[in-house]
Amino acid sequence: MENPKGAEEKILLAHGSGGQTSHHLVNGLFLRHFANAWLDQLDDAAVLPLPAVGAAGRLAFTTDSYVVQPLFFPGGDIGKLAVCGTVNDLSMMGARPLYLSAGFIIEEGFLLSDLERIVRSMAGTAQATGVHIVTGDTKVVERGKADGVFINTAGLGEIPPGIHLSGSAVRPGDVLILSGSIGDHGMAVMSQREGLRFASALESDCAPLNGLVAAMLEASPDIHCLRDPTRGGLATTLNEIAGSSKVGLEIWEDEIPVRSEVRGACELLGLDPLYVANEGKLVAAVPPEQAGAVLSAMHRHEHGREARIVGQATTDHPGRLVLKTTLGTRRIVNMLTGEQLPRIC
Amino acid sequence: MENPKGAEEKILLAHGSGGQTSHHLVNGLFLRHFANAWLDQLDDAAVLPLPAVGAAGRLAFTTDSYVVQPLFFPGGDIGKLAVCGTVNDLSMMGARPLYLSAGFIIEEGFLLSDLERIVRSMAGTAQATGVHIVTGDTKVVERGKADGVFINTAGLGEIPPGIHLSGSAVRPGDVLILSGSIGDHGMAVMSQREGLRFASALESDCAPLNGLVAAMLEASPDIHCLRDPTRGGLATTLNEIAGSSKVGLEIWEDEIPVRSEVRGACELLGLDPLYVANEGKLVAAVPPEQAGAVLSAMHRHEHGREARIVGQATTDHPGRLVLKTTLGTRRIVNMLTGEQLPRIC
Repeated sequence: MENPKGAEEKILLAHGSGGQTSHHLVNGLFLRHFANAWLDQLDDAAVLPLPAVGAAGRLAFTTDSYVVQPLFFPGGDIGKLAVCGTVNDLSMMGARPLYLSAGFIIEEGFLLSDLERIVRSMAGTAQATGVHIVTGDTKVVERGKADGVFINTAGLGEIPPGIHLSGSAVRPGDVLILSGSIGDHGMAVMSQREGLRFASALESDCAPLNGLVAAMLEASPDIHCLRDPTRGGLATTLNEIAGSSKVGLEIWEDEIPVRSEVRGACELLGLDPLYVANEGKLVAAVPPEQAGAVLSAMHRHEHGREARIVGQATTDHPGRLVLKTTLGTRRIVNMLTGEQLPRIC
Repeated sequence: MENPKGAEEKILLAHGSGGQTSHHLVNGLFLRHFANAWLDQLDDAAVLPLPAVGAAGRLAFTTDSYVVQPLFFPGGDIGKLAVCGTVNDLSMMGARPLYLSAGFIIEEGFLLSDLERIVRSMAGTAQATGVHIVTGDTKVVERGKADGVFINTAGLGEIPPGIHLSGSAVRPGDVLILSGSIGDHGMAVMSQREGLRFASALESDCAPLNGLVAAMLEASPDIHCLRDPTRGGLATTLNEIAGSSKVGLEIWEDEIPVRSEVRGACELLGLDPLYVANEGKLVAAVPPEQAGAVLSAMHRHEHGREARIVGQATTDHPGRLVLKTTLGTRRIVNMLTGEQLPRIC
């Protein structure tokens, strides 16, 4: 994407005009990487078939904007995050992700080569995940009125019959299964931002979880709740579930995997891994008699190899999350208050 | 939204943390104004029924980000625009708009009272239009890293059987019908931005067009193409259609309504109304024998009262838009080049 004079091409306000320069960007970049029969029409909206959803079918629909800083970090970038994050939100409702939209807000002067790197990352992640980016939009704002690029994705998926997952469906006795270590994404981004040298081993866990979820639901369609603990971390997500389901939740500190380099970075920055964002992990609430089958299915999947039971739902302290510490004491863990990690996703 | 000390409440980074402060914003503002059974679940994705789309059904899916500046302008604001713009994109495919997502990117320090004004405007417009805002997301970035607020909406609609609208479906002989005067939105925003005093009569045409489209399709389900000429104006939209359908398009300057105050502001700023954005107008390509029925239906609708035939598709100059001027001469009108009106939507 370098021009003949050697200076790198930059995004201009005209790239957001809707006119000829916009068309060049759409045709030369977005269509080239995202190409599919629906997007290629370039109509005002994509016209989509719904393969399996019948008259009684249900759709899952979600959206997230991504403002992560820096845009590129160990283990991922804003493009991969924008696809995985929305795919994962659909997956947490048990939906098979089908279609994504992509809305770009770009700061004037942004390097076209960086935009292409991001778009290529989105396209590769979408392809690996089996979703199609079928509609989009590009806006450009003046230099200093944004921060490089912001990306919004909205996602559509279809929910198979018999699947009814919800944050309000957890019952006392349900077992809490966590798919792997916590805090990897947040600390990878933070270490990059703060320039922590020792933290070279930190890497974001950013990954699409639709395959793992499909395997889990095949093992047990009766899973009560799935959530990906992103902003606010595992503690905030479990507080939300406890509140919505009106049950108590207890988690066991000894059982919650935290990589040693994540723990070290957290200690240095004064953060609690329970509140740090993840982008490739999920927590499931499963009827106890099915925990074994679900765990086995998870262990066979690349994103669930370290899955383990980390707690349980109880009739005690409804609406509250309690941590049983390594020392054997119990303490209430609240939802995140304030903001400890701005622009982590 | 004033606090007891009289200082106005502002958006903090913590409002985008995903934790307790985010929850207060979601519950106290978004849920209060957007309330519906789907959004109220606060799950990772909204789970939606599809009332009429059967196994052969088709969905329309679209997205737009809104970065208009100023946020409030005569005739509308960024919230009304964010609902109308996406509703209109769905409508242009013949879809009945059903559901919207809303993603907010807010600059730290933004006034909560302004956010509430915008949210209230979105809620009112959605209600008047019959769509539901069923899922959303809020991110906050540091002061100076955005410009007040950016809003993304994605939209879902269902396309009734028998409707096949497309930018590539226009045939020679088709009549071009414009629903009303052009340039109103762009010049209302520009005059506000430039502080043009004489321009007090300018008002955006920002409006939802789904009702008008429904009336038109009832009069003639065989309409070939509908488009709303937003960014880049009527000239850019018709160039896109000419290119996609591989037909020539001719429009007649005498027949294209431009309000005198819009014409005056355009002359002052050196702009051509053909390139100025509209947010409540559409252009239709209609088989000639059905033009009468479509026009009559439009004239009975509040957003189509001034509808008229402004041109025709031809076998001459395929892919090109030609303007027959008031003087009787003909000239090629190209797509917008460069950017004349940044951040108009």
